[in-house]
Amino acid sequence: MEQQVTTNKKVILKDFVVGFPKESDMILKTSETITLKLPEGSNGLLVKNLYLSCDPYMRGRMTKTEGSYIDSFTPGSPLTGYGVAKVLESGHANFKKGDLIWGFTGWEEYSIINAPEGLFKIEHTDVPLSYYTGILGMPGMTAYVGLHEICAPKKGEYVYVSAASGAVGQLVGQFAKLSGCYVVGSAGTKEKVDLLKNKFGFDEAFNYKEEHDLNAALKRYFPEGIDIYFENVGGKMLEAVLLNMRLNGRIAACGMISQYNLEQDEGVHYLSSIIGKRVRMQGFIVGDHYHMYPKYMEMVIPLIKEGKICYIEDIAEGLESAPAALVGLFSGKNVGKQVVVVARE
Amino acid sequence: MEQQVTTNKKVILKDFVVGFPKESDMILKTSETITLKLPEGSNGLLVKNLYLSCDPYMRGRMTKTEGSYIDSFTPGSPLTGYGVAKVLESGHANFKKGDLIWGFTGWEEYSIINAPEGLFKIEHTDVPLSYYTGILGMPGMTAYVGLHEICAPKKGEYVYVSAASGAVGQLVGQFAKLSGCYVVGSAGTKEKVDLLKNKFGFDEAFNYKEEHDLNAALKRYFPEGIDIYFENVGGKMLEAVLLNMRLNGRIAACGMISQYNLEQDEGVHYLSSIIGKRVRMQGFIVGDHYHMYPKYMEMVIPLIKEGKICYIEDIAEGLESAPAALVGLFSGKNVGKQVVVVARE
Repeated sequence: MEQQVTTNKKVILKDFVVGFPKESDMILKTSETITLKLPEGSNGLLVKNLYLSCDPYMRGRMTKTEGSYIDSFTPGSPLTGYGVAKVLESGHANFKKGDLIWGFTGWEEYSIINAPEGLFKIEHTDVPLSYYTGILGMPGMTAYVGLHEICAPKKGEYVYVSAASGAVGQLVGQFAKLSGCYVVGSAGTKEKVDLLKNKFGFDEAFNYKEEHDLNAALKRYFPEGIDIYFENVGGKMLEAVLLNMRLNGRIAACGMISQYNLEQDEGVHYLSSIIGKRVRMQGFIVGDHYHMYPKYMEMVIPLIKEGKICYIEDIAEGLESAPAALVGLFSGKNVGKQVVVVARE
Repeated sequence: MEQQVTTNKKVILKDFVVGFPKESDMILKTSETITLKLPEGSNGLLVKNLYLSCDPYMRGRMTKTEGSYIDSFTPGSPLTGYGVAKVLESGHANFKKGDLIWGFTGWEEYSIINAPEGLFKIEHTDVPLSYYTGILGMPGMTAYVGLHEICAPKKGEYVYVSAASGAVGQLVGQFAKLSGCYVVGSAGTKEKVDLLKNKFGFDEAFNYKEEHDLNAALKRYFPEGIDIYFENVGGKMLEAVLLNMRLNGRIAACGMISQYNLEQDEGVHYLSSIIGKRVRMQGFIVGDHYHMYPKYMEMVIPLIKEGKICYIEDIAEGLESAPAALVGLFSGKNVGKQVVVVARE
């Protein structure tokens, strides 16, 4: 078999990060010439990376942490994360050359994946492949699990989504609308707010940066209070939500992006209001729920094909653009799901 | 029928309270002579109050609040709360003269209860009647619901109880031991800590006032982390607990007594840790769960009779002592369930 010889471009984390991550915390490096070949006896996969996913949880991995649900990145090594890739060579019985997969891979052109058991084989290729970093991947499952499994929305309930135009939020809002809920989202620019109302079909949307008093804003949009809050933000936003929850409300705690770059997180006031209002706050990690992926796909693929749901991506071209794309998440630069295209096939 | 003429001693709330409540926020007042007789056509009950219950939630009722799960007290009127009473006259088909009841009544010698539907008739009188303000009343149900319904303890799990010698905490710990859990409690004096270990059978107990670093204390007592936290305290204690929860931990949020007298509650840090640890925090109000009272009684009465559970009360004699007894809750003066005896029969 002919073996291709090439170089391998990589995005390397220089060192652990304090505060807001900067592009300069990462460097782009091109390897010496390598041979595209699995090591002898490997049970892994050699893959060509096509799309890489930029996700807020990655901020946590830039810090040295212990006992987290996910390992820190290794300074001096490429970042890792969700991506879509093509199998060039397989040492594992479940995969063969030419398969498309999504799951954990490296921020580089070519990766060797040593434990491919956690990967998903891509069956539906009549949708954009990049969707497997978003609506058909981890963010899609996050929206589905958080809304349907954790919060169990009932028709007519009031749902609030923060970071609502993001990879997860745009889906939470649309799923909640499909469940017959009244849905309000917030985002940080006029453009995003317009998307929420005009593209994703939210009942209302507002720019949280223009609200001096988030509590008053939520009272305006939810005069009856909030039944379900899909928590992506934390901090002051969560405080305002706590003041506006309804009896028996549910909060799916998925992320708290406002806190990720602080050395000491903000204290959350009004937490005792969960007692009188019988609020349930549930933290979750999508990785616990991947057994439901087939069920989710059964639901979501027809919705996409029938045009009942849409998904906005913010596509950055080339590995070179990956550091800026990732960093941009934390200032809300991305509009929709932030994807990096490494190669299109 | 002969009608008894008497006076009626009452504990009146002077005005809404800011900060720590003081004895002088209440006054003892004796009414003009009254006739012990239900008004013509009343569907209510005329009762003689025997035992009154002092409970931390009553602090909230001393403040003018709106939209709370329970009404504020009315300045100028007697306090109300849980108590045990004897029916002197009944206008309601479910009750008759001589019945013993527990439920909401007034802080006075004689009360007219206009909506007796919410009262419980006392069936078991071969236990101390005062128990119906504690283990056989609201606090007992609170411990039962919070532990068994909200947290569903499994054998071998690690359970932490704050305010552990109080009306609810002493039961949570004992119920958790009976479920095969490892139980640690904290309280604010050596006497209470000794009770936890020697009387209530907690595996370990500590005086939180002697710990400069609550996080370190919990790490010492829970090297494997906490599966279940029964939250009575809030604030710094909750923060330390959040840092020590285990995967899939559960927090039953029953009360946050450390916050009740603050004009602005403390912010709670480390809340985002509930995400990675998949922690569920559930606020609850025992009043939603009284349909389970018969089931609870079936469980707890034999435990009492067989000496498998014990219950410590702090008995204050006479209505005169009621204001000090209530106020004492907030500095932890009471040892065990704080009860006020108005009359013994």
